[in-house]
Amino acid sequence: MGSAESYMTEIEAYVNKLGIQARAASREISKATTAEKNESLLATAEAINVNRTLLIQANKKDLEVGVEKGLETALMDRLELTESRINGMIEGLQQIVALDDPVGQISDLKFRPSGIQVGKMRVPLGVIGIIYESRPNVTVEAASLCLKSGNATILRGGSEALHSNQVIAACIKEGLQAAGLSGNVIQVLDRTDREAVGKLITMPEYIDVIIPRGGKGLIERISRDAKVPVIKHLDGNCHLYIDESADLEKSITVAVNAKTQRYGTCCTLESLLVDEAVAINILPKLCEEYRAHNVELRGCEKTQAIVDSVIPATEEDYSTEYLAPIISIKILNGLDEAINHINEYSSQHTDSIMTQDQCRAQRFLRDVDSSSVMVNASTRFADGFEYGLGAEIGISTDKLHARGPVGLEGLTSQKFIVLGDGHIRQ
Amino acid sequence: MGSAESYMTEIEAYVNKLGIQARAASREISKATTAEKNESLLATAEAINVNRTLLIQANKKDLEVGVEKGLETALMDRLELTESRINGMIEGLQQIVALDDPVGQISDLKFRPSGIQVGKMRVPLGVIGIIYESRPNVTVEAASLCLKSGNATILRGGSEALHSNQVIAACIKEGLQAAGLSGNVIQVLDRTDREAVGKLITMPEYIDVIIPRGGKGLIERISRDAKVPVIKHLDGNCHLYIDESADLEKSITVAVNAKTQRYGTCCTLESLLVDEAVAINILPKLCEEYRAHNVELRGCEKTQAIVDSVIPATEEDYSTEYLAPIISIKILNGLDEAINHINEYSSQHTDSIMTQDQCRAQRFLRDVDSSSVMVNASTRFADGFEYGLGAEIGISTDKLHARGPVGLEGLTSQKFIVLGDGHIRQ
Repeated sequence: MGSAESYMTEIEAYVNKLGIQARAASREISKATTAEKNESLLATAEAINVNRTLLIQANKKDLEVGVEKGLETALMDRLELTESRINGMIEGLQQIVALDDPVGQISDLKFRPSGIQVGKMRVPLGVIGIIYESRPNVTVEAASLCLKSGNATILRGGSEALHSNQVIAACIKEGLQAAGLSGNVIQVLDRTDREAVGKLITMPEYIDVIIPRGGKGLIERISRDAKVPVIKHLDGNCHLYIDESADLEKSITVAVNAKTQRYGTCCTLESLLVDEAVAINILPKLCEEYRAHNVELRGCEKTQAIVDSVIPATEEDYSTEYLAPIISIKILNGLDEAINHINEYSSQHTDSIMTQDQCRAQRFLRDVDSSSVMVNASTRFADGFEYGLGAEIGISTDKLHARGPVGLEGLTSQKFIVLGDGHIRQ
Repeated sequence: MGSAESYMTEIEAYVNKLGIQARAASREISKATTAEKNESLLATAEAINVNRTLLIQANKKDLEVGVEKGLETALMDRLELTESRINGMIEGLQQIVALDDPVGQISDLKFRPSGIQVGKMRVPLGVIGIIYESRPNVTVEAASLCLKSGNATILRGGSEALHSNQVIAACIKEGLQAAGLSGNVIQVLDRTDREAVGKLITMPEYIDVIIPRGGKGLIERISRDAKVPVIKHLDGNCHLYIDESADLEKSITVAVNAKTQRYGTCCTLESLLVDEAVAINILPKLCEEYRAHNVELRGCEKTQAIVDSVIPATEEDYSTEYLAPIISIKILNGLDEAINHINEYSSQHTDSIMTQDQCRAQRFLRDVDSSSVMVNASTRFADGFEYGLGAEIGISTDKLHARGPVGLEGLTSQKFIVLGDGHIRQ
């Protein structure tokens, strides 16, 4: 056997073992009580608190390797664990303790003409694989959401965060054991070979769903190669359409907030659409505000005719998620054109309309095919916390299973339950 | 270019074209009104009624080819369209007209502390691919459910039913056109090359989900090769566990009904588990009833000790979906053993417990990991009509997206909607 072959055999055996352990642990955690799960989350928070120094030392090691490798500033920033970020991890755990346990929730229990009662009960999905990049706090966030929803988890973090992730993994294991739960409920890969990911995403017998978190490249690669269902979110090319009937003051406030409140988030506004009936009234003032925020303006010809020094927008601009102080602007003729433009260019993440017209609001809500559709609100609201989910493991732009922010409920399924008293089928 | 290559190019171009047309049609049908969709369903029913003779002639052709090919009796039976089956197709269409339209339904609309209202709206999945075998009535059933839920559909029926399916396809097209909808909303493949299926299940850009209906071989093949999510149901190895506290009369009634009411359905009882504390009281009488129904008994050693002439059950028996008058019987010691046995051998379709004990009923409901879990009721109730879904496109033993009988709701997703009045994120 060649050495490449024996290497692959070794990797596959390693990941396979994790899978077998996870499947067994998923049976255990699916039956765990809410009290046990909460106890484990609090014990993990305590372990992180006690091991702060160790964690920061491990993170320093990762940062040093990062400097040697010449990682970009943005990556280095995401990698760093400060005292305040460690506090954030601890608070996050406490917040998840406070959330209702979705497992076992019964809904829609109704009597049927046959005399049986039929309803639905929430159940965990089973084993969830999380593949993510540099942020080590994802290890705690993802693991705690999966645990509370009764799932076993296998986490594969980025190689840049290996040392930090190993300390966090040890704290999680301590938390599980404090509550009398198996340490295999949450397993963090201690090797970061790419080949391990290849195996992880192709073993449906052990993994029920893969959630990748990271850049578009990672997510596309995983979606393409996976043999396991993937809950994913590719882009956030979000639109705001200002309708003819919009309140102009509110439109400016919302358009400025959606673009400038934070530039780097997936629900940041990237493309502004304006009805030509109101473009002349709104665009000069709005663009002035954007310029005061140093936002670069790229627009269609009509926009250029109304506002000075607008850079001509190309076809590519309308498809681009800038994640930067740049906005594309297009003047359109009416709601139909706006909906068609959005359904063609949007990444189906979040799109919003400013309008005072009830019928047009209804049509926009229904006909825009995105995971969040809004009326008279900033796209920046598209977030699990803002929606009241308590926390989110990501935002799905898929349609099957989950669409939009995914919280505890999105990590569960519903089975049917039937209650009878000796009922038989006629 | 070799002829094999040019054949593949031609097939791929053909299926690709259907995909492009379906994607465009899905945008149209997602916006169609309930009235338009119902009109189209009723016009299809009328077209089938008017074209009965044509349909029966086409079906005769299929049956003749079937005889030539030497199809099994069961297959020939499923293939045949009698007057009463045609009436059934027409009634099925009328029933779907009567169901509530799920598209656009808004739920859980709540105010959040920020002042925005957040809720969910039901939306179609997009394009659904249905791959099925000999029963031509599936063409109408599946197409009508997908239409009512606002989806475009591509149907690929079995080669044995080609002539029948083409007449049904023409009736459906007539129905769509009568309501002013595009004929591409429902497309039936007019060629049955296997290679077309290979293409259909690997074009995620045009197909959002594949639902295979047919034998285990077909479903396994499709699940393995698909690059599109699959909603599937493999087996129905269903259990009934008779607990120590069970009412013996009711247990016998339910156990007989679950096994003998119909032998060939996926929710038919295949394996009976009995607590050893009550085995001696119940098994002799129950087995006598089974024998009166000519059900073959295969049991564990303990069963053989209590009941005469029971065939020894092998390990394989406990994993088998007989779909026949045969049952496997095992005597166990208590609820834990029963739950463990079910979670190991069951196909996660439908499992039921007979018990008068509230706590054990609750534990069984929660800990048995199947798509339908029942207390004191016959497994034969696991059915979309019995559950009040109105109709079903199949029963999912998956967890992601849909679990159990899949009706109109299972063919939709939910997006988030946000209503504000100029609200911005702080």
